[in-house]
Amino acid sequence: MQERVKVVVDAMGGDNAPAEIVKGAVEAVNERKDIKVFLTGRKPVVDAQLQNYTYDKDQIEVVDAQEVIETAEPPVVAIRKKKNSSIVVGLNMVKKKEADAFVSSGSTGAVLVGGQLIVGRIKGIERPPLAPLIPTKNGVALLVDCGANVDARPSHLVQFAKMGSIYMENVVGVKNPKVGIVNIGAEEEKGNALVKGTYPLLKECKDINFVGSIEARDIPSGACDVVVCEAFVGNVILKLYEGVGATLISKVKEGMMGSLRSKIGALLVKPALKATLKSFDASQYGGAPLLGLNGLVVKSHGSSKSVEIKNSIIQCVQFTRQGISEKIRENIILSAEDDSTEN
Amino acid sequence: MQERVKVVVDAMGGDNAPAEIVKGAVEAVNERKDIKVFLTGRKPVVDAQLQNYTYDKDQIEVVDAQEVIETAEPPVVAIRKKKNSSIVVGLNMVKKKEADAFVSSGSTGAVLVGGQLIVGRIKGIERPPLAPLIPTKNGVALLVDCGANVDARPSHLVQFAKMGSIYMENVVGVKNPKVGIVNIGAEEEKGNALVKGTYPLLKECKDINFVGSIEARDIPSGACDVVVCEAFVGNVILKLYEGVGATLISKVKEGMMGSLRSKIGALLVKPALKATLKSFDASQYGGAPLLGLNGLVVKSHGSSKSVEIKNSIIQCVQFTRQGISEKIRENIILSAEDDSTEN
Repeated sequence: MQERVKVVVDAMGGDNAPAEIVKGAVEAVNERKDIKVFLTGRKPVVDAQLQNYTYDKDQIEVVDAQEVIETAEPPVVAIRKKKNSSIVVGLNMVKKKEADAFVSSGSTGAVLVGGQLIVGRIKGIERPPLAPLIPTKNGVALLVDCGANVDARPSHLVQFAKMGSIYMENVVGVKNPKVGIVNIGAEEEKGNALVKGTYPLLKECKDINFVGSIEARDIPSGACDVVVCEAFVGNVILKLYEGVGATLISKVKEGMMGSLRSKIGALLVKPALKATLKSFDASQYGGAPLLGLNGLVVKSHGSSKSVEIKNSIIQCVQFTRQGISEKIRENIILSAEDDSTEN
Repeated sequence: MQERVKVVVDAMGGDNAPAEIVKGAVEAVNERKDIKVFLTGRKPVVDAQLQNYTYDKDQIEVVDAQEVIETAEPPVVAIRKKKNSSIVVGLNMVKKKEADAFVSSGSTGAVLVGGQLIVGRIKGIERPPLAPLIPTKNGVALLVDCGANVDARPSHLVQFAKMGSIYMENVVGVKNPKVGIVNIGAEEEKGNALVKGTYPLLKECKDINFVGSIEARDIPSGACDVVVCEAFVGNVILKLYEGVGATLISKVKEGMMGSLRSKIGALLVKPALKATLKSFDASQYGGAPLLGLNGLVVKSHGSSKSVEIKNSIIQCVQFTRQGISEKIRENIILSAEDDSTEN
């Protein structure tokens, strides 16, 4: 058998910890024999949860971590002070190569800061972006960056585009993924200072399939596979996706309850509607990887239930087996050599 | 009878000009006796369209303008060179107080540039924002700025907040409208440099009801009445609203066609669904005013049909009768006095 991919999961992070986190870990190992999960957190609490389930004891191990980093804590201070927290203990296991990946639904700030400070950036990577998959009409697109680096520079966005392409091609399996930069018009001369500075650099990249500007209107229809933007804009996109979807659906449901005729219709369309909405729900695609680190760090939604945790864990297998970090490292070294040849 | 509000309409602008524009103008005057519309454009073409309709001849007048500014033309050059275009002729009528307002579905760039160069900014206004109404769960919110000023400064956003409040209170009728700044988290210390610089300034404004940061997720549910952001982010919000809505609806429809059961259900829910979707369609709320000018300039969607043109024209009545430009002027003068007192 192939060696198991080792995934550390923060059992204490998120709105539904530890119950849903532990449940998700059990579901992951029961679905896949090629995964080993380490649950970091308060051992007695985690053990008590585990007793509710049947699973192969070789596939789950609890690693004691007495402290918990709360969402409200300033991330840098929390990472430095809480050495024995579920996040710091987990990230250190990735750093020491005791595990391949770390998954947490806890404080986004702490995961981002901890990922960089503990696991560390690949040499040459300026800023590691958070890159969630978002649903599109007939598939998914990768949104880079969606929250790690506000006030980014053009060189950062170029690296986002390259890392995003590697991810989409190797993890999601999209051949020659189309890369677009989020802009307020399709023309090259449009945009703010950041986009105008980035556009010509992307055009020169030979190793990506840059298709130009993409207007926000065209993201959901799937015009691009890799959607490049700085973190503030990316965060707005991710959250508005969620907000417009939720409001529209609640209005549709409310509207259907308005008359007897539509109430009967609503009963009949309910299963189809549910399936459709599920396919447009970002959480089903697992967590968002922080790209460009010396190991895999995945941030899953704070409100994750067991299914999202399970998907986040399984996502780590493909990432690890495909050697994404190594591919990013090679690509960045190659780019640097290209630059030095040209100079 | 009250004096008629005089609205100039660009008969040549937009994807459906001149037919839908002329039709919208006729519908507006047939609905309201207190409006006079001036249609600017190629007189023979516009006259030919008008012959299809019955309306009070006193309420529509055609003003000949032989040139047309195309969407692809660089706005500043077009406004300077095409003195006899439907846009420049119309804006000049507002400048000379021959009309109260100008409505165009033509080139956004030309309308924005022309509004500032010809009609001119109210003294003290740094940058006039484009402010469309967007649908929310139970009403509408004003999005300022959605496309006029990329790379804005904190002082611009403060003026957007004040002008937006005046608009929502007096045109839409929302008492003490809630003002929020778009941010990537609810906490005061979050955000990019622009938001961090703007937040404390908004907190100090005594003349607005500032409620703090708003995450994009909460915009559609109607958490704020005035949504303040810089133009790049605003444009992304406006267009993603449209994109997510369109994709989700097409997926819902497609999903309902999947089985006989849901097909029958779809027939029954169709009228309710249609009404719901209409209430969530931004175009029904008329065009977006460019706030802070010495007269009203409204940009309606490039794909506007007659109903949107009609709504944009009617919107001008409330704006003019409420003296929005005068209220903005007074507020800005007051703010300036406040500042000088404090110094």
